[in-house]
Amino acid sequence: MKTTPVKIANITIGGPEFTVIAGPCSVESQEQFSSTGLAVKKSGASLLRGGIFKLRTRPESFQGLGSSAFSMAKEIKSQLGMGFISEVTDPRQIGDLDDVVDAFQVGSRNMHNYELLKELGKTDKPIVLKRGLSGLIKEWLHAAEYILSQGNEQIVLCERGIRTFETATRNTFDLNAVAYIKENTPFPIIADPSHATGKSSFVTPLSLAAAAAGADGLMIEVHPNPADAKSDGPQSLNFNEFNLLMTQLERVLESLDRKLGKLI
Amino acid sequence: MKTTPVKIANITIGGPEFTVIAGPCSVESQEQFSSTGLAVKKSGASLLRGGIFKLRTRPESFQGLGSSAFSMAKEIKSQLGMGFISEVTDPRQIGDLDDVVDAFQVGSRNMHNYELLKELGKTDKPIVLKRGLSGLIKEWLHAAEYILSQGNEQIVLCERGIRTFETATRNTFDLNAVAYIKENTPFPIIADPSHATGKSSFVTPLSLAAAAAGADGLMIEVHPNPADAKSDGPQSLNFNEFNLLMTQLERVLESLDRKLGKLI
Amino acid sequence: MKTTPVKIANITIGGPEFTVIAGPCSVESQEQFSSTGLAVKKSGASLLRGGIFKLRTRPESFQGLGSSAFSMAKEIKSQLGMGFISEVTDPRQIGDLDDVVDAFQVGSRNMHNYELLKELGKTDKPIVLKRGLSGLIKEWLHAAEYILSQGNEQIVLCERGIRTFETATRNTFDLNAVAYIKENTPFPIIADPSHATGKSSFVTPLSLAAAAAGADGLMIEVHPNPADAKSDGPQSLNFNEFNLLMTQLERVLESLDRKLGKLI
Amino acid sequence: MKTTPVKIANITIGGPEFTVIAGPCSVESQEQFSSTGLAVKKSGASLLRGGIFKLRTRPESFQGLGSSAFSMAKEIKSQLGMGFISEVTDPRQIGDLDDVVDAFQVGSRNMHNYELLKELGKTDKPIVLKRGLSGLIKEWLHAAEYILSQGNEQIVLCERGIRTFETATRNTFDLNAVAYIKENTPFPIIADPSHATGKSSFVTPLSLAAAAAGADGLMIEVHPNPADAKSDGPQSLNFNEFNLLMTQLERVLESLDRKLGKLI
Repeated sequence: MKTTPVKIANITIGGPEFTVIAGPCSVESQEQFSSTGLAVKKSGASLLRGGIFKLRTRPESFQGLGSSAFSMAKEIKSQLGMGFISEVTDPRQIGDLDDVVDAFQVGSRNMHNYELLKELGKTDKPIVLKRGLSGLIKEWLHAAEYILSQGNEQIVLCERGIRTFETATRNTFDLNAVAYIKENTPFPIIADPSHATGKSSFVTPLSLAAAAAGADGLMIEVHPNPADAKSDGPQSLNFNEFNLLMTQLERVLESLDRKLGKLI
Repeated sequence: MKTTPVKIANITIGGPEFTVIAGPCSVESQEQFSSTGLAVKKSGASLLRGGIFKLRTRPESFQGLGSSAFSMAKEIKSQLGMGFISEVTDPRQIGDLDDVVDAFQVGSRNMHNYELLKELGKTDKPIVLKRGLSGLIKEWLHAAEYILSQGNEQIVLCERGIRTFETATRNTFDLNAVAYIKENTPFPIIADPSHATGKSSFVTPLSLAAAAAGADGLMIEVHPNPADAKSDGPQSLNFNEFNLLMTQLERVLESLDRKLGKLI
Repeated sequence: MKTTPVKIANITIGGPEFTVIAGPCSVESQEQFSSTGLAVKKSGASLLRGGIFKLRTRPESFQGLGSSAFSMAKEIKSQLGMGFISEVTDPRQIGDLDDVVDAFQVGSRNMHNYELLKELGKTDKPIVLKRGLSGLIKEWLHAAEYILSQGNEQIVLCERGIRTFETATRNTFDLNAVAYIKENTPFPIIADPSHATGKSSFVTPLSLAAAAAGADGLMIEVHPNPADAKSDGPQSLNFNEFNLLMTQLERVLESLDRKLGKLI
Repeated sequence: MKTTPVKIANITIGGPEFTVIAGPCSVESQEQFSSTGLAVKKSGASLLRGGIFKLRTRPESFQGLGSSAFSMAKEIKSQLGMGFISEVTDPRQIGDLDDVVDAFQVGSRNMHNYELLKELGKTDKPIVLKRGLSGLIKEWLHAAEYILSQGNEQIVLCERGIRTFETATRNTFDLNAVAYIKENTPFPIIADPSHATGKSSFVTPLSLAAAAAGADGLMIEVHPNPADAKSDGPQSLNFNEFNLLMTQLERVLESLDRKLGKLI
C-alpha cells in the first residue's frame, strides 16, 4: 500500500528519503544533550530524540529530568535546527510538552493506554507510536485508530521489539512487522534496534537489516559515554559507533535506491 | 511467606476466608447492575465489580457509561451493602472515582502505567493490581512498588491470564503465579478466570483450580443475559451458572480447610 | 464431550476414578527405583513412571541407564504389581521397550516427531502423549491423529507446561488446556505439575489445581532424596511430601465427587 | 567470533562469499524439481534444496515422495552440478539418504531430537541445523553439541522463525539471533525467510534484511507454480520473483562488501 508521509519539523518520514532519529535515551544534562545532538547531526541524523519523562520498571531507577529539562531542550534543538521527539507518559503532560516537542512519542508500555492516545489525537503534532511489548500488529493498528478517531492523522509507527521466550537479547526484533505494515497500511514505519536488541554491538547489523526490510527510518540511542548513561547504557552507541553505522547505512540505502534524508 | 490481609469495605482479602468479587464486565444500566448485584450477593459474593471506564481494543467498541454511572453505582452498592471495585484508566479520573469505589482496579493494560500507579499510591483506597498481558512476575512486583513508594500498602494482586502463543483460549491462565506469589510475597492474590479463559464454560473448572492453587479469592464476570452483554459476553456467567459455581466452590474450599467470606 | 477411557495395565484412565502415576524422573538404580515404587504405592499411586532413555538439553548430562535398566524395571514392576510407563525417544527403541512398559510416553520434545508417532500407532500399547513446549492445542490433537492413523486409539494426553515469556517458573502450566480437552475431545487428559512448575514446593498446590480443573490424573516425580537426583531434583517430591500431597488430593477429589483409583 | 566455514559439495558457507540455497519445499516430480533446479541455478543459487521426507502437522497432508525420489534427485543434482540438501526426519533414513544428499537438514521440529542428532554426528556430511519453533538460542547451541559430541564439526545453523504470540505472520523472524550467533559462536548461520514469514511477498525484503544482519546465506523456497505446490505454496517464490530477489540481493551484498558465491 502507498505510504502517506508524515512531516516532523522540517523532515518528511515515509517518502523516498530515509530518516534517522538519534539522541540519548534520557536527557541528562545540558552538556550531554548538546554534545550528543551535535554529534548525531554531523553524522547525518535529521531528528533528535531524548527522554524527559522516563517510564522505568523500578521506582528507584532514574525517572528523567522532568519539566526542568524543557528550556534546555528547547534551546538545544533551536541551536541545532533539528526537530525534537520525546515521550509522553501521562495525559497531564501534553500541554507543557507540546511547547517543547515536534512530535510526541508513545512508548511501548503505553500502546494500550487509550486515554492517552485519545488526548494525543486532539493535538496537531505527529505521534510516533511504538508497538507494545505484547502488541499484536492488529492491536497496534487499533491503537492508531484511537489517535485517528480524534482527528490526528499524523502517525508514524515504530517497531521496537516484542517480548518472546528468548532472553538472549532484550527483545525479539520483529522485522516481519515492517513488511506487514508496508504492504497493508498507509503508515510510515520506523524501527528502533536499540530497544529491540538491547545490546550496542547488535545495533548496527540490525539497523541495516531494518532498512533492508523496508523501514522508513530508524530511532537510535546515542550517548557520549554509554558506560555512564543513567538509562539504557548497554544498548547505546557512542559517537564513533554511530558515525560508523551511518556510513554503512548510506551504502545499504544506496543499494536499495534510497537516500538518507538530510537537514537543509 | 505470610500474607498481609487487605480490607476492602467490610471484607478482608488474604486472611483465612476466601473472597468472591462478582458483577458485570461493564455497568450498563440501573436494572442490569442492580439485578446482577442482588443475584451475586444471594449466591455468596461479598464484593461487587463493574466497569465504568472501559479500555477496549477498538475505539468503536462500547467504552463504558463513564461518570454518568457514578450515582447509580453509589446507590446500588449502598442498597446491597457491598463494597464496589471499578477500574481506573487515567490519573484524572481518580478524584471522582474515589467517591464511588471502595477499591481501585488497575487493569492489565495499565500494569506498566507508572504515572497512574504513583497517583494511586497517594490515595488511601486499596488497589487491585492486575498482571499485565506480558508482565513478568517480577515486573508485576515492581509495579506494586510504584504504589508502595507513595505510601499506599493496600495492594491485592490479580492473575488474569497472560499472552502466549496459544490462541484456543483468550489468554493462558498462569496458576503457577499464584503459588509463586504466595510463597514469595506478602500480597494477597486473587484470580480472574473470566479474562484468563475467555469462555464461560471454562470459568467454573478454572475457578475451582485457582482456589485449589491457593488463591485468596476470585473475580468473576456475571451478567443477566450474557448474549446481550455490551462487553465480554462470551466469558460471562449467567446467574444460574454463577450460583452453581459458588456451590461447587464452597465444597472445594471446605476440602482445603477454607471458607467463603460472607457478608455480615 | 464424553471421555473414552484408556486402560494401562490394571488401571483405567479417564473414567470416574482419578489416576496418579508417580516415580522418579530417571531410573537410577535397583534400590532407588524399588524404594520409590514401594513408597508411591503405599501413598496411593496406581502406576509407576521412570525414565530409561532421557532426552537432556546438554549431551554431557545423565542420559538414563538405557537398556541395562530393562530387567530391573521388569522385576520391580512385577514385585509391586504396578503398570509401568516410560519414555520412548527413538523408533528403534520400540521393540525392546515394548517388553518392559505398559504404556509408552512421548515426551514434550517429541510431540512433533511424526515418524515416532506413526511407529507407536502400530503398537497395541497405550500412548501417553505430552504436549510440546510450544505445541498449540490443535497441533497436539493432530499429533494424536498420527497415532490414530495407524490404528492405535489408546491415547492419553498429558499437559506439562508450555514455554512462555515467564521465567520465574520452569514452564507455564496451561490448565485452560485441560478444560479445553475435556470439552472438545474424547481423550483422557492428565497433568504433570512437576515439569509444569519445575519447583517441588509448587507441585502440591498445582496438583490440586489440576484435579479441580478436571484432569483425569496426575504424573508426579518422586525421589528418595531429591537433592541427589541425577535429573529433575528441584522439582521432585520426597516420599513424605508425596504422601502429604496424596492426603490433600483425596480430600479435594472427594469435594469434586471423584475418587482416587486404587490398585486392587 | 571468527566463523569456521563449512563446505557443502563444491560450495563454502561462512567464508567471505554469501550462499543461496534454493529449491522447492517438496520434490514433487522429475519435471518440477528439474525445472526449479535449472531456474534457481540460472538466477545464482549455488545449492539445491528439496524435501523428500516431509513432516506435516496433519497426517492427511502430503508427506513427500519418500525413497522413490532418491534416483530422481541424484540424477538432477548431477545434471545441474549442484550440491543437494534434504531433510532427515528419522535416524533410520540416514543410511539411504546419505547416498543422495550433500548435507542433511534437521528441521525445526527435530532440533530437540537428540537421538537423531547423535546419529548425524556419526556421519561425515555437513548438517544444516534449523532452530526449533521454541528453541532458545542456548538450546540450539546445545543441540549442535550433540552433533559435535559424536565427532562431526560441519554444522551450519539456520534461523527460520520462532513461535510467538504474533499470528499475522507464520512465525517471527528472529534476526537478532543472527547477530548473536556471529558474535558468540564459530558456526556459519543462514536464514530461511520462506518459513520465517510464511508469505511470498515478504520473502524478498526479509531476505535482504537477513543479509544485512550478517547472515552467511539464505535458504529459499521456489516453485514453478506456487499456487499448485503440494506444500508451502503461499510462501514459495516463482522463478521470476526469485530472479528479482537475486538481483536485489547482489546489490545489497555489494554494499556490505560481500559477494554471492557462484558455482564454478
